[in-house]
Amino acid sequence: MKKINLLNKFSLIDSYWDPKIIGELNNQHVKLVKFKGEFVWHKHENEDELFLVIKGKFDMQFRDHAISLGEYDLIVVPRGVEHCPITKDEVHVLLFEPVTTLNTGDVKSDKTINKPEKI
Amino acid sequence: MKKINLLNKFSLIDSYWDPKIIGELNNQHVKLVKFKGEFVWHKHENEDELFLVIKGKFDMQFRDHAISLGEYDLIVVPRGVEHCPITKDEVHVLLFEPVTTLNTGDVKSDKTINKPEKI
Repeated sequence: MKKINLLNKFSLIDSYWDPKIIGELNNQHVKLVKFKGEFVWHKHENEDELFLVIKGKFDMQFRDHAISLGEYDLIVVPRGVEHCPITKDEVHVLLFEPVTTLNTGDVKSDKTINKPEKI
Repeated sequence: MKKINLLNKFSLIDSYWDPKIIGELNNQHVKLVKFKGEFVWHKHENEDELFLVIKGKFDMQFRDHAISLGEYDLIVVPRGVEHCPITKDEVHVLLFEPVTTLNTGDVKSDKTINKPEKI
């Protein structure tokens, strides 16, 4: 057992839309990801997904509205709800979600990461 | 669905060792708690527990060592491992754990919170 520093872990990430696993508990993963630009519209059939902004800001788009998230903001996107993050500038985000969660959910895309790396 | 700001939620907490529920997903709770002083030694038989420091610092004591945690540090305490947080000064901590988790685990104490409040 050892502590994990989020800032140190983010410094190891040099790609966007590419979540890295930093911890696991109760069949859930803690992941870190850097966003920049627009992701792909998708939903997760069986997984609720938590986003916590560590640095920067982004908009979580839904089909009928968007929510702006800044540092210390979190949002839980329930299973089945289509969403698509977008941001002009780089943002650092912590994810908490079941180990079965695929980043692009029900959509296959060039952004799909089938097997996230552990860092 | 709406965003949750951790700093706003912490401003609503005026007690120590009294976790408040701020979110739920996948049968897990997101809780916020303020620590000050020493908690009680305990373990959770069936739940791994995540601690993320949002403000301040504390020591997580284990039976044979302790780990100092500061802002942006997280630790996952696996089920079955005895632990006891201690801190001289107030610290603000985010918890992520199954909805079944009791704050004092296998121990009954005057710090036991049987039904955490939602804020």
